[in-house]
Amino acid sequence: MWKKVPVSTRARVEFVNIDGFVEEAVRAEGVADGVCYIYVPHTTAGITINENADPAVREDIIKELNKIVPFDDNYRHLEGNAAAHIKACLVGFSQMVPVEGGKLVLGTWQSIYFCEFDGPRRRHIYVHVIRG
Amino acid sequence: MWKKVPVSTRARVEFVNIDGFVEEAVRAEGVADGVCYIYVPHTTAGITINENADPAVREDIIKELNKIVPFDDNYRHLEGNAAAHIKACLVGFSQMVPVEGGKLVLGTWQSIYFCEFDGPRRRHIYVHVIRG
Amino acid sequence: MWKKVPVSTRARVEFVNIDGFVEEAVRAEGVADGVCYIYVPHTTAGITINENADPAVREDIIKELNKIVPFDDNYRHLEGNAAAHIKACLVGFSQMVPVEGGKLVLGTWQSIYFCEFDGPRRRHIYVHVIRG
Repeated sequence: MWKKVPVSTRARVEFVNIDGFVEEAVRAEGVADGVCYIYVPHTTAGITINENADPAVREDIIKELNKIVPFDDNYRHLEGNAAAHIKACLVGFSQMVPVEGGKLVLGTWQSIYFCEFDGPRRRHIYVHVIRG
Repeated sequence: MWKKVPVSTRARVEFVNIDGFVEEAVRAEGVADGVCYIYVPHTTAGITINENADPAVREDIIKELNKIVPFDDNYRHLEGNAAAHIKACLVGFSQMVPVEGGKLVLGTWQSIYFCEFDGPRRRHIYVHVIRG
Repeated sequence: MWKKVPVSTRARVEFVNIDGFVEEAVRAEGVADGVCYIYVPHTTAGITINENADPAVREDIIKELNKIVPFDDNYRHLEGNAAAHIKACLVGFSQMVPVEGGKLVLGTWQSIYFCEFDGPRRRHIYVHVIRG
């Protein structure tokens, strides 16, 4: 069963560490070995994996994404969030992480982030482990 | 079994809504719960998920990708489609979508798009649902 | 079981063809039909799929990524590898490839590449096939 987990964001663009939510869902499923999927059912938010130590890395990623895809650039979409759609397309809507011995196989520096590109908002993620 | 589905494109860069193809493949597999994979066996095309309501969003994504990765930029690859290879690398060659109750779990605004970056051409996608 | 495979890189930014490693892991698992996952447990390296014929394509992708995300851009992260974190976020930390008849379903021009963005280094990839 896919577990639907709420995530709240507090800024227009924000990376929220969701390791705790994902680890809890993995424990609840009780699968020893397989693949964990994290998916967002949105079009202006994404999921990524990145450094968990220095918070400056997240700030650098956000600042550079804002530069690569400017908030305003004569977009035709009139809701003011075209840049959010484009950033989500680049970052992606899902990640997969190996599961071994009932635990996520994250590298030493890896954490999983919900990437808000059009907040602040109440959002959701879906998490599931496939056995195998 | 992976289902191979033909997709035809009509422009150099074009996002084709493939929800219908993917939903039909999911129905044909008859799996109630699991993960649906959509994969392109190409190097100048990709797969993304994005807004299904306002077509201006797709135009904005395409216009911005064309700006981030210009068609001509002193590329060494001589076939004239280096930009297409780079865009496909950024957008990605596969997406996964949860399946519950035999149906794709797409968010309200989400549709699945085949992303042509070097068309027009006859292309293929692979679709499959893993049970679990 | 996830197979952990070492990969060594020899440049700051380098795309290493890992088809051989992945094919060997797929053979070792002996699964006829399913999905092969390739995952990096790093935050400054990624995995992509792209052209295997003309090596100029890889050079063009690397050159353009270096332009989109400059090595130096007043980043706050002080280790000198902020650009590597951002590039990895754009390229992604995993790929999936269909498996049929015990073999990877790669398109004619597709190969799988480990993407080093902060080398040279000793790295690892994880490979696994889920049956289904």
